[in-house]
Amino acid sequence: MSGENGRVAVRSEMRWNGWGEPARASDLPRAVRMLLPLLLGRVRKPAAAVDLAEVRLEPSSLQEDDLQELGSIVGAEHVETADESRIRHAGGRSTPDLLRRRRCEQASPDAVVLPGSHAEVVDVLRACAGRGIAVIPFGGGTSVVGALDPERGAHRGVISLDLRRLSGLIRLDEVSREACIAAGTTGPDAEALLAAQGFELGHYPQSFRYATIGGFAAARSSGQNSAGHGRFDSMVTGLRVATPTGDIELGRSPGSAAGPDLIRVFLGSEGIFGVITEVRVRVHPVPRERILEAWRFPDFPQGVDGLRLVTQNGGGPTVIRLSDEAETAVSLAQVGRIGKALTTGASIVTVYEGDGIAERRARTSEILTAAGGVSSGEGAAEGWLDGRFDGPYLRDSLLDAGVFCETLETATTWSNLKHLRTEITATLRRGFAEAGARSYVMCHVSHVYPTGASLYFTVLANLRSDPLEAWAGIKRQVNDSIISAGGTISHHHAVGRDHAPWLEQEIGETGVRILAAIKRELDPTWILNPGAVITSDRAGRRG
Amino acid sequence: MSGENGRVAVRSEMRWNGWGEPARASDLPRAVRMLLPLLLGRVRKPAAAVDLAEVRLEPSSLQEDDLQELGSIVGAEHVETADESRIRHAGGRSTPDLLRRRRCEQASPDAVVLPGSHAEVVDVLRACAGRGIAVIPFGGGTSVVGALDPERGAHRGVISLDLRRLSGLIRLDEVSREACIAAGTTGPDAEALLAAQGFELGHYPQSFRYATIGGFAAARSSGQNSAGHGRFDSMVTGLRVATPTGDIELGRSPGSAAGPDLIRVFLGSEGIFGVITEVRVRVHPVPRERILEAWRFPDFPQGVDGLRLVTQNGGGPTVIRLSDEAETAVSLAQVGRIGKALTTGASIVTVYEGDGIAERRARTSEILTAAGGVSSGEGAAEGWLDGRFDGPYLRDSLLDAGVFCETLETATTWSNLKHLRTEITATLRRGFAEAGARSYVMCHVSHVYPTGASLYFTVLANLRSDPLEAWAGIKRQVNDSIISAGGTISHHHAVGRDHAPWLEQEIGETGVRILAAIKRELDPTWILNPGAVITSDRAGRRG
Repeated sequence: MSGENGRVAVRSEMRWNGWGEPARASDLPRAVRMLLPLLLGRVRKPAAAVDLAEVRLEPSSLQEDDLQELGSIVGAEHVETADESRIRHAGGRSTPDLLRRRRCEQASPDAVVLPGSHAEVVDVLRACAGRGIAVIPFGGGTSVVGALDPERGAHRGVISLDLRRLSGLIRLDEVSREACIAAGTTGPDAEALLAAQGFELGHYPQSFRYATIGGFAAARSSGQNSAGHGRFDSMVTGLRVATPTGDIELGRSPGSAAGPDLIRVFLGSEGIFGVITEVRVRVHPVPRERILEAWRFPDFPQGVDGLRLVTQNGGGPTVIRLSDEAETAVSLAQVGRIGKALTTGASIVTVYEGDGIAERRARTSEILTAAGGVSSGEGAAEGWLDGRFDGPYLRDSLLDAGVFCETLETATTWSNLKHLRTEITATLRRGFAEAGARSYVMCHVSHVYPTGASLYFTVLANLRSDPLEAWAGIKRQVNDSIISAGGTISHHHAVGRDHAPWLEQEIGETGVRILAAIKRELDPTWILNPGAVITSDRAGRRG
Repeated sequence: MSGENGRVAVRSEMRWNGWGEPARASDLPRAVRMLLPLLLGRVRKPAAAVDLAEVRLEPSSLQEDDLQELGSIVGAEHVETADESRIRHAGGRSTPDLLRRRRCEQASPDAVVLPGSHAEVVDVLRACAGRGIAVIPFGGGTSVVGALDPERGAHRGVISLDLRRLSGLIRLDEVSREACIAAGTTGPDAEALLAAQGFELGHYPQSFRYATIGGFAAARSSGQNSAGHGRFDSMVTGLRVATPTGDIELGRSPGSAAGPDLIRVFLGSEGIFGVITEVRVRVHPVPRERILEAWRFPDFPQGVDGLRLVTQNGGGPTVIRLSDEAETAVSLAQVGRIGKALTTGASIVTVYEGDGIAERRARTSEILTAAGGVSSGEGAAEGWLDGRFDGPYLRDSLLDAGVFCETLETATTWSNLKHLRTEITATLRRGFAEAGARSYVMCHVSHVYPTGASLYFTVLANLRSDPLEAWAGIKRQVNDSIISAGGTISHHHAVGRDHAPWLEQEIGETGVRILAAIKRELDPTWILNPGAVITSDRAGRRG
């Protein structure tokens, strides 16, 4: 796998209209198939998805001289205009993205450009700015918030800038435990390169198998081990970024008071200010030991209190997550036990990795027991660990069966967490009911902080009307509900285009003005990912 | 002390030309007096400092109608034009600041304005923008980087905006362990208000007794307990800021991917983008237990390795700091042992507070012992704890005795730490030698991160020529040396005016352009702290 400079060359392609590799796709587990009618009533199987060969695209709007200049920068073989490549870069992997892929007409970028170095990224940006071509930076293609929509803004064309050739471990400082990783490196490639030298990054979001290091940074990702290693923001110690008007290298020191921390301007910028080409991160030795333990709580609110006490008392698990009653029931569903499963309370999974895990487990166990939890041993936690990257495959199977399935997430303070969950759940249920559908809403808490935690919802529904249109309306109501109930519009999926209209309610008019001012300075012709994060009506405004 | 809304009304005034309260000032300890000739040779006592009554100021450039409008906003009694108030707001507490105070002519703001609410801050900014009056936000007055110089930029006058009336605990969320504190609250007042409810912030920089919560945020402060509680950046969960063109409230959730973290735009902005009026911070229960322990290492490099191993293996002390041989010798100097003291290796102080301190100490002790350290018990650590806020008093006594004394600081990765210290030490020694002075350079490491640590230097010298001019030249060389040897221009003192010319080397031309773009958006007439962070030659430039 590993070539020159520890660079990784080959990568498995995701299905164009679903998650992951076709070989890993699976039918609905029998237990889920038996459970669905209980939860949702009758589900109607949709029309079969279209084949890649049936897809029709608009002709590329780029001219021969556009392609020639781009080819002169990255090599002609790294400028792709074939339909298949354009389709594969046409968006991310939200449920609406996948539902749109079931149709014959697809919006797509006019070309896909694959630069091989930071300098080539710089030159591509300069060329596109000069030619009036929008640029959508593309990592693993796993966005679920519309950050990869081929929106051209005011420009005459749009390219997808695929960073996969910027792959590899650039430097490892073993003493400082800091690694510099090329932005297009996928999660598994980064971990493999680090593991070969005894280190781990330890960032495992559900998109881990496909998403890239640069994407984690650009979208402020948070992984399943966040209780132990923090969210990706906190792992980043430096960045190299190419913008249309100049380069920037940040992160001279692990702590600094040299003005505002500009790394944080690019973390979460989702490609609107520049293209992240290198990311420096802290790493730690590959953990030698792991303990798993699942816990059962009488209900979700008591489980939340347990989570909070563990978090606020510090030094505990590497992973800690709480599923509510609805999610617990489904995850425990087994053939022959359907029905019984729905009354089993809320479950917590804990994982301990690294040093001192026996002590850390003992301390955590004591707190969880005092909070009303009962250990249910290793088994349930193993089940979670084995399937932790496979949720999106299950969604594909559900969509194939005609079950609408989508996720959304937010975060708030501990004191507001139960209220926010109640509000969002009620909004989801009401929205589906108004659309004439039965729904089943599940929730878990998977990222914890001293002052609060995340909420992650999975919803299943037997939507009969056009699910794209129905969900768009429900999602709008949920976003309003998140804002009015004090949550953040996204804890780790980011803003993209889907959440951009709500960002002003989160950071205020002044906050959006700050983002727009940075955007105008770095990308004055607004070529970078137009419409993402900042709604495109801002593009024309000044001040 | 505490009034309406838990607000604190009374505050002790610092000496106008030195540190802290006159009652706490002290003569040089006898041991230090005996040691000085050994270290520096003969020192010449300087002319006595001038009295406050001898100081001459330029007349205030503000007009009657300026003062009337400001008075109509904050109340006439909160607009001060008396010389004493203007002198007390004429700068910070760096050694150059104090040396300048020994002269009769003093630059000063034209008036001191004390707003009583966020709304009054907003109105003062609007009035000053309209009238072309610069505004220097003023917290505790403890800046050591020239952030409080009464620079008016292109404006016809300048006021000091003293935030002391914005004082108190606004809200405490005990469940989420989050407190909202008015920006003008001093460190001791904030801790007293929180302690009354069982909580602690735990931020103890050397300026703690005078500096304010808003100042900690604006300058990206780091406190002595940073190993346990993190630097101030990491404590902040929300901000309220008044800018000349609009308000902003940030921090809806403990973790978020809703675009870039704009809190970080204001942390470290040193009043150039807006005036921080409220700060939300995470707090923790007042620790019930404390263990102190000092350690001795053969030399500084071995001590650094010990520090690194403790930090990278996690979960250890609340405070850990390492003094090099030179600092160890002076701090241990005792009458009757002068001479012997200079060969005692490097010392580490550790403090453990909070839960599980016995385990944490055991784990730390094991690592330090394996790294070549020997415990020297509680005594030396107690000495550090007792005197930890008193360094600036000692500096006053040294200056009175004619000994030049100043501090500076930086940070870098673990792998570069020893090199950076060697370079800075050499630059300091060479600089003083070229100025014809003997010098004594001490260094400690007091803030640690998984990937690196800070370096804090204290230098003593028998400068005979004009110390202000000589030091300005040496400090320039040190700043160059920090940049060329890979350090940050400041780890926790911030940029102010003193480091502003070096910021571009740290964050690049593109970085400075980002800051200037935000500045132009929020403060288009450039009234806020002109010349701080961004050098004033930027004010005119676009792009």
